[in-house]
Amino acid sequence: MSDAAIDVLGIGNAIVDVLTHAEDGLVEAHGLAKGAMTLIDAPRAEAIYSVMGPGVEVSGGSCANAMVGAAALGSRAAYIGKVRDDQLGRIFAHDIRAAGVAYDTPPAPDGAPTARCLVLVTPDAQRTMATYLGASVELGPEDVDPELVAAARITFLEGYLWDPPRAKEAFRAAMAAAGGAGRTVALTLSDPFCVERHRSEFRELVDGEVDLLFANEEEIVSLYEADSFDEAAELVRGRCAIAVLTRSAKGSVVVTANATHEVPAAHVEQVVDTTGAGDLYAAGFLHGLARGRDLPDCARLGSLAAAEVISHFGARPEADLAEAAGALA
Amino acid sequence: MSDAAIDVLGIGNAIVDVLTHAEDGLVEAHGLAKGAMTLIDAPRAEAIYSVMGPGVEVSGGSCANAMVGAAALGSRAAYIGKVRDDQLGRIFAHDIRAAGVAYDTPPAPDGAPTARCLVLVTPDAQRTMATYLGASVELGPEDVDPELVAAARITFLEGYLWDPPRAKEAFRAAMAAAGGAGRTVALTLSDPFCVERHRSEFRELVDGEVDLLFANEEEIVSLYEADSFDEAAELVRGRCAIAVLTRSAKGSVVVTANATHEVPAAHVEQVVDTTGAGDLYAAGFLHGLARGRDLPDCARLGSLAAAEVISHFGARPEADLAEAAGALA
Repeated sequence: MSDAAIDVLGIGNAIVDVLTHAEDGLVEAHGLAKGAMTLIDAPRAEAIYSVMGPGVEVSGGSCANAMVGAAALGSRAAYIGKVRDDQLGRIFAHDIRAAGVAYDTPPAPDGAPTARCLVLVTPDAQRTMATYLGASVELGPEDVDPELVAAARITFLEGYLWDPPRAKEAFRAAMAAAGGAGRTVALTLSDPFCVERHRSEFRELVDGEVDLLFANEEEIVSLYEADSFDEAAELVRGRCAIAVLTRSAKGSVVVTANATHEVPAAHVEQVVDTTGAGDLYAAGFLHGLARGRDLPDCARLGSLAAAEVISHFGARPEADLAEAAGALA
Repeated sequence: MSDAAIDVLGIGNAIVDVLTHAEDGLVEAHGLAKGAMTLIDAPRAEAIYSVMGPGVEVSGGSCANAMVGAAALGSRAAYIGKVRDDQLGRIFAHDIRAAGVAYDTPPAPDGAPTARCLVLVTPDAQRTMATYLGASVELGPEDVDPELVAAARITFLEGYLWDPPRAKEAFRAAMAAAGGAGRTVALTLSDPFCVERHRSEFRELVDGEVDLLFANEEEIVSLYEADSFDEAAELVRGRCAIAVLTRSAKGSVVVTANATHEVPAAHVEQVVDTTGAGDLYAAGFLHGLARGRDLPDCARLGSLAAAEVISHFGARPEADLAEAAGALA
């Protein structure tokens, strides 16, 4: 890998989370898939919000959370994603910059408001998400600066980008720029329902441009319509350079053409809210890889960052991750 | 007291809090008074926000926090305060209603945006507040429905209302309506700097229309320019029916013409963030009083609600306060 000004560049849907505690009944009443992300339109967002309890607004977005985590670990991180120039958009931009992530995507001057995700945290600490994409659908290839992509060791793309049509073009433009510059292209499958929506295209991506794939157990099983995790892990082997498969409390498995590394989950005293677990795992892994750590170490950094974020309410790190990671060295 | 449809009606500045962890250096660099509230204009709000860390947005406002606390304890609570019809205004309105507080003040259709308070929580768990009043200055007497005031056992006013000129008129209108209906008028002095700004007028209010006064140690000492807490407590005695004086870890003292009740603070495992302590103390006390509890019991309910809110980040209750208060019965 040649020298790079940026360790990790993330591209994703720029979203503000509205977190609330909720009973299972609310999740069921609105037909949301528990533990997963459902796309909703503006009227449905209004309907769910109107019956939700008081909320806490925090900048979110899967890939943005990962970039904030990587920056907290010491990576030079950057982010591309679209907000509207409204109050929530300004909050999103402030927060990601204040977390040390370079962020220069111009906000949309009109159209739909900044995207928001209603996050219902049930008493079992599971989070169910309902996302109104709003302004994030305005992200297009014109927002992807090829020089920025070429300057990043790793470009990390979220599968959710496949939902808004123009974002998909931005995604393809970024992959082309990263590939052309000999950089690493990383993809997270984001969500089992996202895999269902885009299965054949995601398989092609993994076979083609993707070097590093992140997926949890449900997502990888869905991608290959496998009968078991082990079968899915064998099906993905060799299709991309590195497949990183997360299994919640069972830890994670890193699969390459010739090797398999199993790494246990980091200890958590009490799981408060699983929002952001996958994002922060990716943050740790990407940080390790950008800094030249070996694969088991990358997985351990991922587990450690995920453990921190599930031990409190919200999807972005609160503790000093760099200090915690130092204990691993 | 005759029958009332509402236990407590609060009138205050409607504010969204932007909470962040900060070092003491940031508080000093911006000339903010540590542990107190400083009023700032829009450019200064922008300047502080631009150097602040990532934030968490939560509906706030001293009096609104108290009403949410009272509702959580089981009171029928209502609130009057002004937001703009913008994203933060809609968040404020949603959250207070979702907390069970009746809220019908029409939002301002134009003018300044919804008020926000930058809350800097330093490592010692103290909070320093910088408030941009925004749309809350638009509150005026036309927003105070005399029938609503007459329907409330207690009308609770925050001293901060004395800052925006038209809010002061609203405050006076509410006091007149409450007095005319034979209801209880409660006032919190809000903040020692607020007392400095309006000392003589606050003294007149206490001598005249106020039945129930809330003040912490610094505020009551400042109000009477006393040399000690004990001196201030004697100076306020008999000026209003009940003076409730809070002393943080030293508990609270309830002073009437003929009696003094000292009540210890409730035990807190770890103080995380003192934001909202005074507001929630008032919530507990007001709830007790509206429900006919004796004064020491009211003070105990106040201590209990304050203890809950300082044990986590943010100014509104997270635990089931009614359940916790049940243990007192």
